[in-house]
This record gives sequence, structure tokens and C-alpha cells, in this order.
Amino acid sequence: MLPDALKRLVHELKKLPGVGPRGAERIALWLITDGVGVSSALSDALSAAVEEVGFCPVCGTLTRKGEQCPMYTDPSRDKTRICVVEGPLDAVAIERSGVFDGTYHVLGGVLSPLEGVTPDDIRIPDLIKRVKDDSVVEVIIATNPSAEGDVTANYIADELRSYGIGVTRLARGLPTGGLIDYADSDTIEKALENRIKL
Amino acid sequence: MLPDALKRLVHELKKLPGVGPRGAERIALWLITDGVGVSSALSDALSAAVEEVGFCPVCGTLTRKGEQCPMYTDPSRDKTRICVVEGPLDAVAIERSGVFDGTYHVLGGVLSPLEGVTPDDIRIPDLIKRVKDDSVVEVIIATNPSAEGDVTANYIADELRSYGIGVTRLARGLPTGGLIDYADSDTIEKALENRIKL
Repeated sequence: MLPDALKRLVHELKKLPGVGPRGAERIALWLITDGVGVSSALSDALSAAVEEVGFCPVCGTLTRKGEQCPMYTDPSRDKTRICVVEGPLDAVAIERSGVFDGTYHVLGGVLSPLEGVTPDDIRIPDLIKRVKDDSVVEVIIATNPSAEGDVTANYIADELRSYGIGVTRLARGLPTGGLIDYADSDTIEKALENRIKL
Repeated sequence: MLPDALKRLVHELKKLPGVGPRGAERIALWLITDGVGVSSALSDALSAAVEEVGFCPVCGTLTRKGEQCPMYTDPSRDKTRICVVEGPLDAVAIERSGVFDGTYHVLGGVLSPLEGVTPDDIRIPDLIKRVKDDSVVEVIIATNPSAEGDVTANYIADELRSYGIGVTRLARGLPTGGLIDYADSDTIEKALENRIKL
């Protein structure tokens, strides 16, 4: 039904995270019609990004290939406070809030015995090395509020216990703007457990 | 926060229909990491599609550039029945159902006096020409069930009245698999109005 070249484009677009079969068709059609100017800009941006973007060898955050990230190299940022996140985009989201002036440590995943993901696979030894090398005073664990995120957070907390530093985790509760009648039971349970005196 | 090359990629990806700012970030990160193999395949597929895909000069459907579409050139299909759709992907969706063996006529839009879209802008003169040239017996109007879709359908029906052919429109009612308590009032109204004797 679709011309072969368009089928192939839809096939590739469907592989993108969050893009379903119908979304891929709409994007493909748009790219060859209204968005035909975007098509070449997109191809160029894509090859430039693949070529130029890398990960900070210390933090695992996104940066220019072969360079340390701007957060780690900024002398005004507090290297003694490390925020541990699962992926580089989590660090981007926390940076966007503008309330953290320490540095990040990207795990690149979570512990998962079922999928064979061990502490060595997710840069936990690197984290421990940084704790020692940079005289870290606090590690803030910002793994996702999921079962795997919990397991990973607890494992890291145990590993760091002997260093006598502060290990904390992001608070659980109601998200700003969320509706209580839409909140799941676990969120409400956590919000009650961690309720704050006014 | 994001390296420049990645920012640029996110900026281009955000222009795609249905891709929001967070979605664009996730796609961009995936393309330069896990999906790095897809990146070049995607660029290739994109330029091939821009180069090779065009629109049937008769039907306005997607086809190889400079060619008539396979539906119009297939001698087993009924050229005397035309299904009128807003966009080429609507024809793809109807083809997927496999229940229509006529041909299509893509309007490429809907009438919108506010946005200055007139009948000449949406291939209505071409449709009338086809009705005459191909001795059409039925025009099935498959514009979207929206206010503009309704206006466009009614306009086409009026224009075709003098030709003494059948002009029909896709039925309105509950979508298969839809839940009645989720259906909007207009859908329920149409489903009641058009109820079928069992």
C-alpha cells in the first residue's frame, strides 16, 4: 500500500522510543511533504550528534565527545555532593530544576538480577572511587521510584555505609500539580508516611 | 546542559508531529547510544523517501514519484466508486481494512473559510472531473467526523447532486472496542440516531 521507500522510512521511525506504527506513518508523511525542509536538517543534526556527543568519563553525563562535562569542570560546583541517577536525561531534568549545585553520577541502568545486571555493570565501583577521591560528604540517590530503583538505591546505601558519609534519597510523595484522586495507592502511602509537620 | 549538537538534534526532532520536548530528548539520546546503528539507516531511508515518494496525479495517494498509484492502475479495481479522504494516510487506513475495492481521491485538506481554504485548494474540481471522466456511480465521502469534515462532505454532496450519482458518507457510531462510558455525547447521539434494527 505504501511505496517501498516510505515503508522503509516508517520501519526505521517505528524503532524510535515512544513512536508507534501510526505515529511513524504520520511522521514519515510529514517529513516528505510539509517537513521536507526539516528532513535534511534532521539528517545533518543526527550525524553531527553521533559524531560530537559523548559522555563525561567521570560523571557519565552528556557532554562533547572526549571532554569532561560542564558540571564537573565548573569550579563553582560542589564536588563533595554527588547526585546518583539512572540515565543522563535524569541529570538533565534535575539540572533544569536549578536547585542542585553538586555533580552527577550516571549509573547507566539499575540492578536487575533477572537481566543479569550486576553492580559492576552500572558504574557503582566508579561511584565508590569518586567518594574516596573527591572527599564526598553526601550522596543523593535519585534512582527512579520503582522496584529496581529501590533495590539499586538500597544496595548503594549499603556499599557506602562504611565511609561514614551522608546517603540520602529523593523524597517520595504527591507530585506538584497531581490530583490526589488520580494518585496510585503507593504514592498516597508514601505521601502519608512522609507527611510533613506544618 | 545538553551538548550543542544534541540540542540541535532535539530541536529538529521536536518539529516532528506528535513528538514533544521530552520525547525528542529521549529519541535523541537513544539515537546516539543504543540506536546508533539506526541513525544512519534512518538518514538513508529519509533521503530515499524524499527522493522516491510522490503522489498519484489522479488520486493524490502516496506512490512512487511520477507514477500513478497501484490502486488506480490495478484493472481489477472499480474505478466507478471513489472514496474521498482528507489525507493520504486515511486512504492507507481504509486500504488496511481490505473491504474497499474502488479508488481514492485525496483532498489534501478540508474546507475552512477562516483559514482561507476554498474548494479549489482541496482538489474538488479534480474530483468532479473524475466523476465525469470515469462514469462514477458512487462517491463515498470519508472525511473525518469533525466540524470541518462535515462542512466539506456537505459541500461535495451539493456539488455532485446534479450528476445523479450516489453520494454516501461513512457511518457514525460507536467505534469497535470503544467503551460506552468513555464515548463523548456526540458519538452517543450519532449512535442512537443511526441505530440499526436487529
